[in-house]
Amino acid sequence: MKPHIRFDGASGALILLDQRRLPASKEYFYCRDTRDLIYAIQEMVVRGAPALGVAAAFGCVLAARETAAGFSNPREGAEALDALLDALAAARPTAVNLRRMIERMRWVRLDRDPPGFAELIALWEAESERIHKEDLEVNRRIGAHGAELLDSGDVVLTYCNAGELATAGFGTALGVIYEARGQGKDIRVIACETRPLLQGARLTAYELHRNGVPVTLACDNACALLMRRGLVSKVLTGADRIAADGDTANKIGTYGIALAAQAHGIPFYIAAPLSTVDLSTPAGDDIPLEERPESEVTHFGSRRICPEGVGAFNFAFDVTQAALISGIVTEAGVLFPPYGQSLARAVERG
Amino acid sequence: MKPHIRFDGASGALILLDQRRLPASKEYFYCRDTRDLIYAIQEMVVRGAPALGVAAAFGCVLAARETAAGFSNPREGAEALDALLDALAAARPTAVNLRRMIERMRWVRLDRDPPGFAELIALWEAESERIHKEDLEVNRRIGAHGAELLDSGDVVLTYCNAGELATAGFGTALGVIYEARGQGKDIRVIACETRPLLQGARLTAYELHRNGVPVTLACDNACALLMRRGLVSKVLTGADRIAADGDTANKIGTYGIALAAQAHGIPFYIAAPLSTVDLSTPAGDDIPLEERPESEVTHFGSRRICPEGVGAFNFAFDVTQAALISGIVTEAGVLFPPYGQSLARAVERG
Repeated sequence: MKPHIRFDGASGALILLDQRRLPASKEYFYCRDTRDLIYAIQEMVVRGAPALGVAAAFGCVLAARETAAGFSNPREGAEALDALLDALAAARPTAVNLRRMIERMRWVRLDRDPPGFAELIALWEAESERIHKEDLEVNRRIGAHGAELLDSGDVVLTYCNAGELATAGFGTALGVIYEARGQGKDIRVIACETRPLLQGARLTAYELHRNGVPVTLACDNACALLMRRGLVSKVLTGADRIAADGDTANKIGTYGIALAAQAHGIPFYIAAPLSTVDLSTPAGDDIPLEERPESEVTHFGSRRICPEGVGAFNFAFDVTQAALISGIVTEAGVLFPPYGQSLARAVERG
Repeated sequence: MKPHIRFDGASGALILLDQRRLPASKEYFYCRDTRDLIYAIQEMVVRGAPALGVAAAFGCVLAARETAAGFSNPREGAEALDALLDALAAARPTAVNLRRMIERMRWVRLDRDPPGFAELIALWEAESERIHKEDLEVNRRIGAHGAELLDSGDVVLTYCNAGELATAGFGTALGVIYEARGQGKDIRVIACETRPLLQGARLTAYELHRNGVPVTLACDNACALLMRRGLVSKVLTGADRIAADGDTANKIGTYGIALAAQAHGIPFYIAAPLSTVDLSTPAGDDIPLEERPESEVTHFGSRRICPEGVGAFNFAFDVTQAALISGIVTEAGVLFPPYGQSLARAVERG
């Protein structure tokens, strides 16, 4: 498939595969300014921590083009541009990649002190393409390291979507599975549907099936029974932010699966790029957990599934404590406890 | 509300509130013969272990009326009648109440040796009404015993539906909550939506809201985070079958919640009538777990939520090991470990 995130320099549009519509239809969402992209991020047209980082980098280009329309040079428009970048960085709070890639773009600008908007836009566009390409390469390396953890015959339970659609391409958790299968290992997958937005049912099942990986869907609440019945050999998920101590924020429900995995002696692995590691967040309790509209839980599409007047919890993420995580697969290799040390060392070198 | 299960002697129809349509609409499903009732049970027009017991008792009356049409007396029609009762008992495999109430009706017949169908039908109808009334009384006693476990200020997480609609009325787990609130205790409830059929969102939220109990909905996968955040003080669910050792089958997802409750030191209680206890099933692994059509998971209503060609697990129940259960609330009082002894004693006396 063509990249699900791509920037069309000619028209100045960031073109996103609309993940809300999958697998029923394949539609593209055009972001012509930062407001479009903020909407796309908040409504989950694009989602997944690494993909958000890539989209945000291109979003900086949108912001520069927008600012160029109202100011004669970047120095004059600096305040307006900063406001757009800040708004973009705040679009969703949990995945650190979003903020981080925007920071990286700010450094490009400061380093080179460009004299005009044309230069700034060209530099940022090139840097965004580099970020896009790097993420793809990082995922390949994650796949190579992670594949060593999987044995032929494994049934891997995964959660939410940590595949092509959550990254620049190839995927983190699903990249590991693609790589292991590429090596000839017989790996089957259980995809949890991932309520309320069903990224597992809609995106992970779609990707795996398209790529010829045997996949069976399960409701999120089935994990413990499937483990008890011996139907799961390993758990492998992505991450939205990894704190300095290894505590990991990921899609709501991950924590419960990790508890069940521990109770059944099943290894629980995270696969994520080092850009997801945030050493400035000491521990899981310091990670801000996004709360989303309760209508995502009370309604299915436009249909209300509970009585009028009943509200709902809708935390988008939870935190899995480091003690429950058997290993973290990164582009620098598989990291093991104590994560305080292994993460710091990997980030330093990376 | 009028009873959601009622038998109309004049027309000979068993009238069930169609629980598939709640809360959107209130429709009634008329069972005119055992085939109608088997359909209603399998499609979950009526569900909940105690409610299935009551419906099955009335189903015996339907079976007797049906047989009466083809035979001159019950002795001649015995084989045909037995076949109908066996089919009814096999409609769903996990809840023991279904089989048990049919067994109870068989004893009525054998004891009194009725000379004609009119007498048999009259005796069975009276016995069914007695079972219906007894279940209601049992639930009141469960409520009274269970209410002692709840303190003002508690937030009780419940799963699936163990309320009026799962019983003859009042409910088991929800009956405990109604009783505690009736005593003036401030109890709030978190109802898990209970995928795939959403009994929590559709039925529990509906019942509680109608009865003025503050209730907030949550996706099943949110339980561990809600516990971690200190938002849950106790867990209270119903049961579909309790084995002799205390291992308890309940709606799929209960086991994962029990594991999370244990990890957070939160008491996990079951509320169920002694008719749900099956001393002839030694342990949880001996309880047959119904598998339902995968379309319940792959589709939402008529809309497919995962790609064509992807299948799904759909076990309807899981088993929570006795070691995870803090107490079992029955009409004979709250039972505590070791359940092998406390259950046997309660059943013997009951």
